[in-house]
Amino acid sequence: MSTRKFGRLLPAPENYLPDSLLEEIARDGLDATRRDFLRKSFAVASAAGAAGAAFASGGALAADHPGPDGDLAILQPQKSATSLGNPVAHLPYGLPSRHEANLQRRESPGLTKRRESSIAFTPLQGLFGIITPSGLHFERHHAGWHDIDPASHRLMINGLVATPKVYTMSELMRLPSVSRMHFIECGANTAMDWGSPAVPSVQYTHGMLSCSEFTGVPLSLLLEDCGIDKAKARFVLAEGADGASLTRTIPIERALDDVLVAWGMNGEMLRPENGYPLRLVVPGAQGVSWVKWLRRIEVGDAPYATREESTQYVDFMPDGLHRQYTLIQECKSVITSPSGGQRLVEKGFFNITGLAWSGRGKITRVDVSVDGGRNWTTARLESPVLSKCLTRFNLDWAWDGKPCILQSRAIDETGYVQPKMSALRAVRGTRSVYHNNAIQSWRVEAGGEGVNVQIS
Amino acid sequence: MSTRKFGRLLPAPENYLPDSLLEEIARDGLDATRRDFLRKSFAVASAAGAAGAAFASGGALAADHPGPDGDLAILQPQKSATSLGNPVAHLPYGLPSRHEANLQRRESPGLTKRRESSIAFTPLQGLFGIITPSGLHFERHHAGWHDIDPASHRLMINGLVATPKVYTMSELMRLPSVSRMHFIECGANTAMDWGSPAVPSVQYTHGMLSCSEFTGVPLSLLLEDCGIDKAKARFVLAEGADGASLTRTIPIERALDDVLVAWGMNGEMLRPENGYPLRLVVPGAQGVSWVKWLRRIEVGDAPYATREESTQYVDFMPDGLHRQYTLIQECKSVITSPSGGQRLVEKGFFNITGLAWSGRGKITRVDVSVDGGRNWTTARLESPVLSKCLTRFNLDWAWDGKPCILQSRAIDETGYVQPKMSALRAVRGTRSVYHNNAIQSWRVEAGGEGVNVQIS
Repeated sequence: MSTRKFGRLLPAPENYLPDSLLEEIARDGLDATRRDFLRKSFAVASAAGAAGAAFASGGALAADHPGPDGDLAILQPQKSATSLGNPVAHLPYGLPSRHEANLQRRESPGLTKRRESSIAFTPLQGLFGIITPSGLHFERHHAGWHDIDPASHRLMINGLVATPKVYTMSELMRLPSVSRMHFIECGANTAMDWGSPAVPSVQYTHGMLSCSEFTGVPLSLLLEDCGIDKAKARFVLAEGADGASLTRTIPIERALDDVLVAWGMNGEMLRPENGYPLRLVVPGAQGVSWVKWLRRIEVGDAPYATREESTQYVDFMPDGLHRQYTLIQECKSVITSPSGGQRLVEKGFFNITGLAWSGRGKITRVDVSVDGGRNWTTARLESPVLSKCLTRFNLDWAWDGKPCILQSRAIDETGYVQPKMSALRAVRGTRSVYHNNAIQSWRVEAGGEGVNVQIS
Repeated sequence: MSTRKFGRLLPAPENYLPDSLLEEIARDGLDATRRDFLRKSFAVASAAGAAGAAFASGGALAADHPGPDGDLAILQPQKSATSLGNPVAHLPYGLPSRHEANLQRRESPGLTKRRESSIAFTPLQGLFGIITPSGLHFERHHAGWHDIDPASHRLMINGLVATPKVYTMSELMRLPSVSRMHFIECGANTAMDWGSPAVPSVQYTHGMLSCSEFTGVPLSLLLEDCGIDKAKARFVLAEGADGASLTRTIPIERALDDVLVAWGMNGEMLRPENGYPLRLVVPGAQGVSWVKWLRRIEVGDAPYATREESTQYVDFMPDGLHRQYTLIQECKSVITSPSGGQRLVEKGFFNITGLAWSGRGKITRVDVSVDGGRNWTTARLESPVLSKCLTRFNLDWAWDGKPCILQSRAIDETGYVQPKMSALRAVRGTRSVYHNNAIQSWRVEAGGEGVNVQIS
């Protein structure tokens, strides 16, 4: 990288600005006034290279001689403050800047009849790295979320165990704990695009995806503490305390592997809408199995065929049958920027960035195409690259101003290659809702607008 | 771990409860009513093993037949909700549970004359893993914090460069970006304990420490874009836009190494109190060098000897001289729980947990002593173990109910071993404020109270 030349820094696209300046076609459409303002400031800024030379001698600069407010034609750095700012602990629990108010998790209106069983999508287009801020973690509930008092919360473990037990939070939290970073993706992520492109931006196509550092006790340890009957145990049932009594079956080999009974998320207690004070973490599995407000684990010798796995969360196949218990989220990736609903204001250098993940292990490679899949270039992966965790990729790109199609294709450590939509449809048909891990295509129009398209 | 027996789960300490139940001696003292309540619930919970057997057959349980409110003697899991909870996107930007309101960054009253130049400490005793929630990131300002509009923010690079430039945020954010996890520690962290133990809890002894995933453009790339004069350049000066015009010198070899000009923190834009929209990230270096609200980088051929490096942030040595430009935070660790101000309510099993870090690379080992340094046991390190990043360690422990002294000792990849206080004082004397990386000692009293002590 140290020898690369990217030449004059061209005016930047809105999509690389903080979300406070990001245009959301899906919600607001384009705001001509704001765009004009941005264009002007870009035009001024791009002259910096020449005029900036006036300051080459360094020393006392604009801080001492600030120009008039708003006069961007005078080239100077950010003005220094001339008064005291806000005190420490102004907010005992801090919040984002007032300029970031537009970066929100958002519903896609009309998806469900009630907001208690709806979805709030993570704004992937405005995020960096792999950690999802907990305040923007996606939401999907079946009967709304609760803020349960941890002092009274109890977890029961029963079924095929020698000694059924009920644990308090304090009993769980003194046990040997583990911290690990994992993605969580709803099995229905990208569901709206099984047929044809239906939603405009990556927030709605892929925003049922988040990634956090989770802390908890291995489920295997609790099962051993209760004396699991290893000869008979083949499955566990996890049950949540929400009004839906959400329940899912998990095979015993996974329950005894890397599953956590977790209370921590990104360093602090889980958020109420993510299962506070206790949820199951099932790395690599679809989100519905990560049971929130966890109240009970039952050990059994057969799958439980609950509502959420017998008639819901099943994959309708072309032959008229349906797949059940499709637990694993297969290898997948998406370019988060530039992406649908964003706009490149001018040709020139851009950083293509996105996320890749696999429910089966680590990402080993991500390829990016800017010509609809004819040619592929291997992207840079940011470290750490962890198992069953988001991986951030980046690729340098110079846009020539012509229409083009951007795609990313991930490969995981099992050798699995993220499929094209045509390959996925050949196996799964078009009646599916869940587990769409096809390659996503964003068309960049001549005007720079990113549009969600599907190409076979 | 799979074969370990930890026997009956004894009643738990407050310190393993969520912070909503944590007793803060420093601020509130002990609350007898709440403690009694907890004792009662522990006593009930510890009987779970026997009575819980009544539920061993599984199936329809307490969800269908909830017991009377508050009757903890009836052993059952968390009751299932019988009504709808809150809808999605109830909070467009989510917040912690109402039960976690006690987990705050806090000032140590009277540390400074004004709150704009004070410190708010991160509550390490209540955190898990390595990521610090951005809402709890520590604060240390010299003239208060500002919420700068990114649309008007400008970064100038000048001095020994062919072409000085002024960058807008959008110009920076379209460049090839990098995401990396790093700790940041104020050089004055643990300053109050150079002489003798002065503050009661790990929030105040070590809470000027946080860790985040940062995203930005390598400073080296910007310096090359401006045509740095590599023959003459030996230092850079970084300047913030706050009223203090905080400025620090950084050696050129570090500036060209892993330093970032960063806008992203834990997936989103920096928080205003952490430098929004732009700060310098200087991995391994003391926090004051991570200049916030970054407005200017000047390339020079000599150190700048600014106020914050000539008379402040210097180490007073025993011989009457003082060390300047002590950039690197040496290898250090601390047990965050059990720790000062927390209390173990009863003897039995506990998870000892803490953090280790080094400004020179990765942590390779952490040893823990429960007898004041006579014997040491190697702790488990949670992955990922990253360079210049916090590393979480855990160790199983059974407390026998007797007074004891807990310590941790970190070793980094250079082979450096975190020193005892006596070894540090032998070199540095007792007049120092900054760069105290000595082993921390917490005495556990017979009653279970954790107390901050220093042993030589």
